[in-house]
This record gives sequence, C-alpha cells and structure tokens, in this order.
Amino acid sequence: MTTLTNTRQVRIEWGDCDPAGIIFYPRYFEIFDASTAALFEHALGMTKYRQLKELDFAGYPLVRTRAKFIRPTRFGDDVTVDTKITFGRTSFEIEHKLSRGGELCVECAEKRVWVVRDAQGQLKSHPVPDAVRAKFDT
Amino acid sequence: MTTLTNTRQVRIEWGDCDPAGIIFYPRYFEIFDASTAALFEHALGMTKYRQLKELDFAGYPLVRTRAKFIRPTRFGDDVTVDTKITFGRTSFEIEHKLSRGGELCVECAEKRVWVVRDAQGQLKSHPVPDAVRAKFDT
Amino acid sequence: MTTLTNTRQVRIEWGDCDPAGIIFYPRYFEIFDASTAALFEHALGMTKYRQLKELDFAGYPLVRTRAKFIRPTRFGDDVTVDTKITFGRTSFEIEHKLSRGGELCVECAEKRVWVVRDAQGQLKSHPVPDAVRAKFDT
Amino acid sequence: MTTLTNTRQVRIEWGDCDPAGIIFYPRYFEIFDASTAALFEHALGMTKYRQLKELDFAGYPLVRTRAKFIRPTRFGDDVTVDTKITFGRTSFEIEHKLSRGGELCVECAEKRVWVVRDAQGQLKSHPVPDAVRAKFDT
Repeated sequence: MTTLTNTRQVRIEWGDCDPAGIIFYPRYFEIFDASTAALFEHALGMTKYRQLKELDFAGYPLVRTRAKFIRPTRFGDDVTVDTKITFGRTSFEIEHKLSRGGELCVECAEKRVWVVRDAQGQLKSHPVPDAVRAKFDT
Repeated sequence: MTTLTNTRQVRIEWGDCDPAGIIFYPRYFEIFDASTAALFEHALGMTKYRQLKELDFAGYPLVRTRAKFIRPTRFGDDVTVDTKITFGRTSFEIEHKLSRGGELCVECAEKRVWVVRDAQGQLKSHPVPDAVRAKFDT
Repeated sequence: MTTLTNTRQVRIEWGDCDPAGIIFYPRYFEIFDASTAALFEHALGMTKYRQLKELDFAGYPLVRTRAKFIRPTRFGDDVTVDTKITFGRTSFEIEHKLSRGGELCVECAEKRVWVVRDAQGQLKSHPVPDAVRAKFDT
Repeated sequence: MTTLTNTRQVRIEWGDCDPAGIIFYPRYFEIFDASTAALFEHALGMTKYRQLKELDFAGYPLVRTRAKFIRPTRFGDDVTVDTKITFGRTSFEIEHKLSRGGELCVECAEKRVWVVRDAQGQLKSHPVPDAVRAKFDT
C-alpha cells in the first residue's frame, strides 16, 4: 500500500519576483501551502472550503517548516511541485519538491497538526481521523 | 464640525517591488486597506479585531475602488498615507493620498458598505450606526 | 479584423482569503496583472521575461485602474478571467472580467503606458510599436 | 566586542490573515525578509536601495530558512521582531524572534550568501567585505 501524492504546475509571475528579477522567497511558501491544500483536495475529493464545512476539523496549522533554495526561479518559469505526506498521530509531515525542467529548485519540509475547535471555540490538536488517512491509501 | 482623518507612515520594502525595481501595484491596495483599518481604529479606539468582537457588524467590504499612479515608489521609500472618509447611509467613501517627500504618488478612492450577518450568517448591508459615525466627529 | 483576447482559469486559494473567508481584494489585482501578462504572452508568443530581453521596451506600468466588486469569491473557487485590450498611441486600455460559473464577480479597467529606457536608464513613454500591435490582429 | 542587532515593531494586518483568523504563515517570511534588510540598513546607515547603488554587491539571497510557529498571531497584534546576525566567510546566519507582549510566537533561522555580479552579469558568491562586517561591530 502506498500513499497518495500530488503534482501540480505553477507559473511564476512577474509580481512574484523582486528587484533582483527572481522570485521573492515568501511566494514559495504561498505555493507550498496551496500544494498541501491540493493534496488534501485530491485525496478527499472536495475543496478545503467543503472540508471545513463537512468534516469536523478546523484546519492543519503549520508547526514548523524548513526550505532549501537550490536554484532561483523567475517570472515566466513554469515549475512543477511534487508533494507527499507522512502521517503521525495528531500531525503529519509534508515534503514539497519544486523543479523546473526536471531540475530541483527548492525543497521544503512542513510539519502540521490536525486541529478541531473545542466547546469554547479554541483550536486544539486532535488525532487525524482514520477515515481521512484511509483516503490517502492507493 | 469636521471629520476625523488619519495619517500613517509606511516603508516600501524590497519584497513589495517587482523586477522593474518599483512597487508592484497590488501592494498599494494592501497599504490602503490597512490605512482604512487604521482610520477606524483611530476613530473607534479599538483594533478591527476588537471591533468585530464588540460591535454588531461583520466588516466593510469594498464595492469599488479606483487608483491613479502618478509617481512610482521603490524599496527604501518612506511614504505617507493620508486617509479621509465621507459617510453615506449604508456605505462610505474613503480617499487615500500616498506621498513621498511632499510629492503625491498615488491617489485612491474606495466605496465600502457596512455589513452585518443576518440570522442565516449571510452578509447584508446595514446603515452605519450613529454611534460609529459620531466617533468620527472632531 | 478583431483584436486578440485571452481567457484563463484561476483557483482562489486559502491564502488569498481574509478572516471574513472571502478573497482579500488586493489579490484580484495580482490576478489581473498576471492576466494582462498572459494576454501579451498569448499575442507575442513569448513570456514577459523574453519580451524584456528581446524587444526594445521596459514594461507597461499602470497609470490608473478601477475595479467593481459585484460578488465575493472564496477559497476553492475556480474563476475565469476574460481580458481584452484597446490600443491608444503610447498607451492601452485593458478590461478584465472575472466570473465564476458564468456569473460576473469583478470588473476591472486598467490604463497602461508602453515605456522604454532612455540613454540615462530612465523610464519614458513611447508609442506602442506597430509590430507589437499587429500581433494582436486576428 | 559584540555584534549589532535590530529590533522593530510590526502590526499584523487584516490582509495578512487567513480564513482561520490568524496570520497566513508566508507573511511571516515577508516580515523576516524586511527585518534582515532593517538590520543591514541599521548597520550600514543606508537603505538597501542605496547599498545596491553604492556597494559592489548584488544582494544576499537566501540559501535556506527554517521556522517554528509556537503561538499564532492575528490582525491587530503588534509584534516585536528581534534580529541578530552571525557572519561566515561568504555567508551569514540570521536569527529572528517574533514575540507579542513578551511571549515568543515564531523563531526563524536563515542562511544567506553575499553575492556580486560577475562580468557576464551572473550572480556568484563572494566573501562578505571586511568593511561591511566592521559596521556590525559595536
């Protein structure tokens, strides 16, 4: 049994880039956040909007992230983001690899926690439901 | 009787600028949105976070905006944003003037509506409360 | 003879949205700027990066923009942006219509100028080259 | 002899936050990038714009970053960012600590390289000039 992965294409835009003509690196984290959402949408078969409506959870906030910038990208580049997940009990690890023309440009590793709202509306961590994890089995 | 205005200083950052070395214009709208919030915070004496908690309203979404870009700004520029308001019944108009060293760089005019959530949680327009408007009288 | 238009699909992401759960409107201008670039890429058959390398010009900065927000969009929405252009002599007008499921959500009108760098490296307006305009004839 | 540090105040804005009502984490990296620039501006006594004009260098691109998110922040929060630097030969490490009311919210560690443009205009790493390092001695 393997775990679902996701691949998506992203265009680096003019407005993503800084006066050095290359991408301003916080934009990579916007791309990676959307790639995590795309993986969950792929697995669960519904958008994050519907997940929050229909599943009993309140998101998967980031606990830590790290990224390594290997080659710069710039506006007009079409890049590929490959995303994979490893589940823990109340948390999961995500790895993103962003490449252009087969060459790795950025690697990112995230740790996120599954959270629900308690009776007071506060966010608290919670085991990732088995029904959710099962959707990633392929 | 006059109406309260607000002035704030903003630093244009490297990451706000594009490969032409000047500000990427959507960043101006981020600045203007924060300037509108700053005017309300100034008038009401509480942050937008507390306004949403303590006042019976759900925000003031934008209906339309227009901006004229007169002189470019670039990273390292310290600019001044002057903001003033004109109230209608369920809406208000905001004018922002962004200048650097006394020279006008951008003019922006916004129309926003006062909204509340109805019983179904949907946003709907509502007269700006007199108690709110009174806070802008100086 | 008609003028080339461009249509593209855009996913509204979680990170594009604000605490009201709807898109933070400056993100629309990021979308529209990329839509203008996409129209030029479509017409000229090269990315903006290559245009700046291979054509004798320095971009098309915005002189003014205005937008009307008709219906909110939110994360998970797949929207369509239709973009058309009308050329003046040294400037051009762009219209963007952003819709979701056939319903118009935002209208935007931009005026931009064609600029080149003079001998001192300063930006100055310049007639849009006939060779560029001809590429938009269909 | 100690090394110069920098502290700055930042307001978390409505538009920095996501539908969960807390900051969208890529915004932290925008804040940290500006904090690195502020440290250099503090040390060198000139903005990054003037540094790029007057010093023989082309920036300090990021090689890697990692961040740990301890407590969320939200719109209306005024946070403090403390930034310190440790120099290597052609690179340097930056540490940012972002706190609110004395409580640590985010820790970030960056590694950046000093780059210059070679005769072909390509970026290449270069030892941090002694004259630059000396400006950080206090």
